[in-house]
Amino acid sequence: MTSSDAPAPLDWTDLDKRAVDTIRALAMDAVEKSGNGHPGTAMSLAPAAYLLFQRLMRYDPADPDWIARDRFVLSAGHTSLTLYIQLFFAGLLDLEDLKHFRKWGSRTPGHPEHGHTPGVETTTGPLGQGLGNAVGMAMAARRERGLLDPDAPAGQSPFDHRIYTIVSDGDIEEGISHEVSALAGHQKLGNLVALYDENKISIEDDTTIALSENVAERYEAYGWHVQTVEWKRSEEYVEDVQALYDAYEKAIAETDRPSLIVLRTIIAWPAPHAQNTGKAHGAALGADEVAATKRILGFDPDETFVVEDEVLEHVRKVRERGGQAHRDWTGAFSAWRTENPERARLLDRMRERRLPEGWTDRIPTFEAGKAVATRKASGAVISALAPVLPELWGGSADLAESNNTTPVGEPSFIPPEYSTKEFAGDWYGRVLHFGIREHGMGAILNGIALHGGTRPYGATFLVFSDYMRPSVRLAALMQLPVLYVWTHDSIGLGEDGPTHQPIEHLASLRAIPGLEIIRPGDANETAAAWKFALSRPDRPKGFALSRQNLPTFDRSEGSGFAPASEVGRGGYVLVDAPGDAVPDVILIATGSELQMAVAAREQLAEEGVAARVVSMPCVEWFDAQDKSYRDTVLPPTVRARVCVEAGIAQPWYRFAGDAGRIVSIEHFGASADYQTLFEEFGFTAGTVAQAARESLEAVRG
Amino acid sequence: MTSSDAPAPLDWTDLDKRAVDTIRALAMDAVEKSGNGHPGTAMSLAPAAYLLFQRLMRYDPADPDWIARDRFVLSAGHTSLTLYIQLFFAGLLDLEDLKHFRKWGSRTPGHPEHGHTPGVETTTGPLGQGLGNAVGMAMAARRERGLLDPDAPAGQSPFDHRIYTIVSDGDIEEGISHEVSALAGHQKLGNLVALYDENKISIEDDTTIALSENVAERYEAYGWHVQTVEWKRSEEYVEDVQALYDAYEKAIAETDRPSLIVLRTIIAWPAPHAQNTGKAHGAALGADEVAATKRILGFDPDETFVVEDEVLEHVRKVRERGGQAHRDWTGAFSAWRTENPERARLLDRMRERRLPEGWTDRIPTFEAGKAVATRKASGAVISALAPVLPELWGGSADLAESNNTTPVGEPSFIPPEYSTKEFAGDWYGRVLHFGIREHGMGAILNGIALHGGTRPYGATFLVFSDYMRPSVRLAALMQLPVLYVWTHDSIGLGEDGPTHQPIEHLASLRAIPGLEIIRPGDANETAAAWKFALSRPDRPKGFALSRQNLPTFDRSEGSGFAPASEVGRGGYVLVDAPGDAVPDVILIATGSELQMAVAAREQLAEEGVAARVVSMPCVEWFDAQDKSYRDTVLPPTVRARVCVEAGIAQPWYRFAGDAGRIVSIEHFGASADYQTLFEEFGFTAGTVAQAARESLEAVRG
Repeated sequence: MTSSDAPAPLDWTDLDKRAVDTIRALAMDAVEKSGNGHPGTAMSLAPAAYLLFQRLMRYDPADPDWIARDRFVLSAGHTSLTLYIQLFFAGLLDLEDLKHFRKWGSRTPGHPEHGHTPGVETTTGPLGQGLGNAVGMAMAARRERGLLDPDAPAGQSPFDHRIYTIVSDGDIEEGISHEVSALAGHQKLGNLVALYDENKISIEDDTTIALSENVAERYEAYGWHVQTVEWKRSEEYVEDVQALYDAYEKAIAETDRPSLIVLRTIIAWPAPHAQNTGKAHGAALGADEVAATKRILGFDPDETFVVEDEVLEHVRKVRERGGQAHRDWTGAFSAWRTENPERARLLDRMRERRLPEGWTDRIPTFEAGKAVATRKASGAVISALAPVLPELWGGSADLAESNNTTPVGEPSFIPPEYSTKEFAGDWYGRVLHFGIREHGMGAILNGIALHGGTRPYGATFLVFSDYMRPSVRLAALMQLPVLYVWTHDSIGLGEDGPTHQPIEHLASLRAIPGLEIIRPGDANETAAAWKFALSRPDRPKGFALSRQNLPTFDRSEGSGFAPASEVGRGGYVLVDAPGDAVPDVILIATGSELQMAVAAREQLAEEGVAARVVSMPCVEWFDAQDKSYRDTVLPPTVRARVCVEAGIAQPWYRFAGDAGRIVSIEHFGASADYQTLFEEFGFTAGTVAQAARESLEAVRG
Repeated sequence: MTSSDAPAPLDWTDLDKRAVDTIRALAMDAVEKSGNGHPGTAMSLAPAAYLLFQRLMRYDPADPDWIARDRFVLSAGHTSLTLYIQLFFAGLLDLEDLKHFRKWGSRTPGHPEHGHTPGVETTTGPLGQGLGNAVGMAMAARRERGLLDPDAPAGQSPFDHRIYTIVSDGDIEEGISHEVSALAGHQKLGNLVALYDENKISIEDDTTIALSENVAERYEAYGWHVQTVEWKRSEEYVEDVQALYDAYEKAIAETDRPSLIVLRTIIAWPAPHAQNTGKAHGAALGADEVAATKRILGFDPDETFVVEDEVLEHVRKVRERGGQAHRDWTGAFSAWRTENPERARLLDRMRERRLPEGWTDRIPTFEAGKAVATRKASGAVISALAPVLPELWGGSADLAESNNTTPVGEPSFIPPEYSTKEFAGDWYGRVLHFGIREHGMGAILNGIALHGGTRPYGATFLVFSDYMRPSVRLAALMQLPVLYVWTHDSIGLGEDGPTHQPIEHLASLRAIPGLEIIRPGDANETAAAWKFALSRPDRPKGFALSRQNLPTFDRSEGSGFAPASEVGRGGYVLVDAPGDAVPDVILIATGSELQMAVAAREQLAEEGVAARVVSMPCVEWFDAQDKSYRDTVLPPTVRARVCVEAGIAQPWYRFAGDAGRIVSIEHFGASADYQTLFEEFGFTAGTVAQAARESLEAVRG
């Protein structure tokens, strides 16, 4: 059961063979009953999946969250039955679940969904993401070991385990596979073993039309350990499980590098007509083909979902073996606990995602009147918290100095040989250097958050959130506590020009369900936002931070300005109408435009117009408040409103309402200093005040 | 001048050396004056850029749009001065332009912008995109040759030319480089020559912290011809221009494969302190360092923007040589014209992006009452138009059958050896097989549109538009006539579940300035939308098409339903309130939800409520109409409104207004059949009718 055993001839009985054929029959039946799905790979990968889940992986079906379990990531998420059938064999799913494959409310949705089905480590389907998650998990395993048990000899820590993944032709084609595989090689992730199912079939059938790279050589160029297992020998197809097992044992023994096993299979084998076709990849085989295949496999073609008693009894033994492995481990773990009380407390804290007593004491406050970029304020918070929050780690996609994401004095998470004069590397370091690989960063952050209790963050310019968007979406879908530090959040970026200036990004990120976008209006809002964000590890959160300096508001008693601690409400009255009069107009602003609203309020006051300024750093947090609070901040009776944000107006219509006005930018930016851009594109106190006058006019009718 | 000359010792005089050093001085001065920018690479790549623009590339500065010119793509867009200074040498820019680097309104923005600066072939900066554009250009060059001069021997056609690109460490790290490079190798693009400036410095300084792949081996695995030119020899740095020239000549001679030249340079060389540092990558060197470097180069440190007369005279000779090459070519081109009158007409048409007389005759109409998925209607249009519009070509990222993008009977654009039983390949084919490489597809489509007059389209599921979003943004920024066929446009995708169901995508794509999103409501709207979209090659357009069948409305005389030709207005009254009464309420819908609005209108009519149904397939087209038309469709006095779309509400608040209601989905989807999903998530005629009642109530107050 344990993967640390020495290589040995594989004990592979007729009952194992029958179990593997049962997988094929179940896969066909499940897709046939559903009417759609992906049967082919579940059939041809049956021996490989069975080998992994029944012989190689260490896990305990009775405790799917056992921290020392080997992780399995099905990057080829479309072949979800590959996983579901193993979970059924392990007793984590029932046969009924397989019968309800792809049905409303079932535990067996079209693609594996983490948090929905026990034993599913991550949500996959969008290709390449799972491989990235696996790389992130392998990195997290090292970092967590560094926090908990750094001195144990290799393979001797109760925290040592492996990350297994299965990838398909599609994963290999996706660009993200390059980013994460290059990084995995660079990080020398010896705890990562990937199986590449090279079946040369995708939806457009024979991949020869689009795929001719030498994948093995490519991965060698990344520094991976690469083996090829050929099941398509000359004219004959031989499922040589022993050869695959040997390759796995070698991959496991290779602890200095990640391993890739290229397994050459025939999709949908042994279906007589469907094998080796694109149809078998993504569609039900049809009753005749299923019957013909069942005959070949020695199953009654008239029966469905057949699992013979002795097969079930045989495969369910994985529960005993897994339970035994878990019990065997408990001794070492208890010893570790006893010897490492402080680390044990850290582990407990991380498992509950609970922050230590007094952790907020270190969060800096910023002096009123001083101009500070919110990215710099964010950097100060990260540096201040690093000593008390060892679980907080992260880095940038090659923009660390611009993103202000490097905590002072902390080592980099890289093999020491890759240290440079700027960055000292440590196997267990905490500063991540993703390189210019935003998409890979996104998937790796997800993998880190999935693996354990650390709190990862990743950074780039806000405009390049587009490069990582598919991973951000999955973080939102899985509700992972990942943090994004997106700086240079508007045309305020300046001279780099329109390719680097976000315009639509605040809107398009707010559009993702379950993602929280936080755009603080000054340094103290930034610090308060970090505090609030870290204290709620319920879902991913993205900061949008300014490159340019912003004034730090005086929020002292008597200033009339609300404290920054109000940030957690998402939107709040920063400063009310003069004399706390009922406001004539409400000015709603975020980030760098908040100062313009404040200045416009002064201009309007001179004209006798009473304007309230609402700071709205996080629309999602504001939406989560009860209606009475929201109505207090934005009284429905005050219909004269101005929203101002240096992005498109789309998210603001609902706050502005029919009589409101929105100061926005509906076109791409330009290359110039930011002061010129704000002026030329109409972001000034004057334009905000003018918009207020127009809105008041509209209310008057 | 012409690149077809035989290799020869390079004539590289002291004047050439002085010109190269002048580049370095100008680069330092421009960044210093701007106060920011990227001087380092412009300095170290000065000899390479000079070699390319002064010796290797065939182009005519007097006619930057000469169709037979070699294309140059600066994928490393941050080193824009590398390009600007060559354009200055060629007389396409003035010294004044360099002095206004990164200033408001200048021709020298921070990153190169196509359409803004003469001689800039594409907008770059977001890393990896330029390389993808170059691959697209190389593919377009082959397709265009196939349309115009297929029988000419290799190298003998007036259309033969090359695509040169310079890529940086960042391009190499980005995932998109994998997708497009794998595809370039697969396509055997012998007309593509890439220079990889391996300076091992990026913004986080020494790339050793993040980059250790063997790039040469990786590109060999892709099937590229790879050479390495080492300028960092032992202890000494030697800018061996002859070695680089020899490598270029070999790369040019290699016409069966794309070529990569790995050039090992020292960034910012020969700046005494800044060389080989991250600072030199992305910041001004500072006055002292500039002065010190100028002394090393033999320039007066007190003078700026110095271009000695004899240097300018020398470099400007490129104009004569280019003009001569152009004149030499004219004979062959005229002969081709005479011999190929029909193809010449096609060329003229393509250059003007003009469609042939009568091209719309073939667009199918669909029978009322029949249920047709809009993706299928789209496929029928593509197949119908293929014979009359040879310039229309494209394909899918491995979802051709689902996206319905393969015109019947047309050959694939792949080397014939890669033909499969499903797809017959032809060097000059028209069906593109991108593999599962959406991002690469996006950048390649841009390159195709930039290269010449063909009209490319690319396809995937709408949810995976996220994977190609950075390229879509650049298409919008450059206003390229690229078409996206995004199918499976909502939860209507069904069983594949939330990872595959777009929720936020219509909103987030509409958020991109200058992009048009078209979601037709039935088969005939789809056909009309294709017609309108093809006739307006002014900017990129994306179709959002249904997987599921939709009813085809009866639009005949007397039906009360407007003709589908109204689609071009973006929004129109599909069917007015019964009896053409003043509507009590307006129901606005797109795509598959249009049928629900129509059915809700019937339900409401039974209650005596007069509802108008507005079909709004393209918000951007509707916004482009004049106000009087818009007010006719959506009279401001009718405040009771319902918007219905199976996506988030964000884009619809401005149409719904204060009293309106929006039937939307604000969370991720689920895995089940689509009928169940629409019902469970509240998209039915009943929910639309109920929303109408609520809106009417709100109006009544």
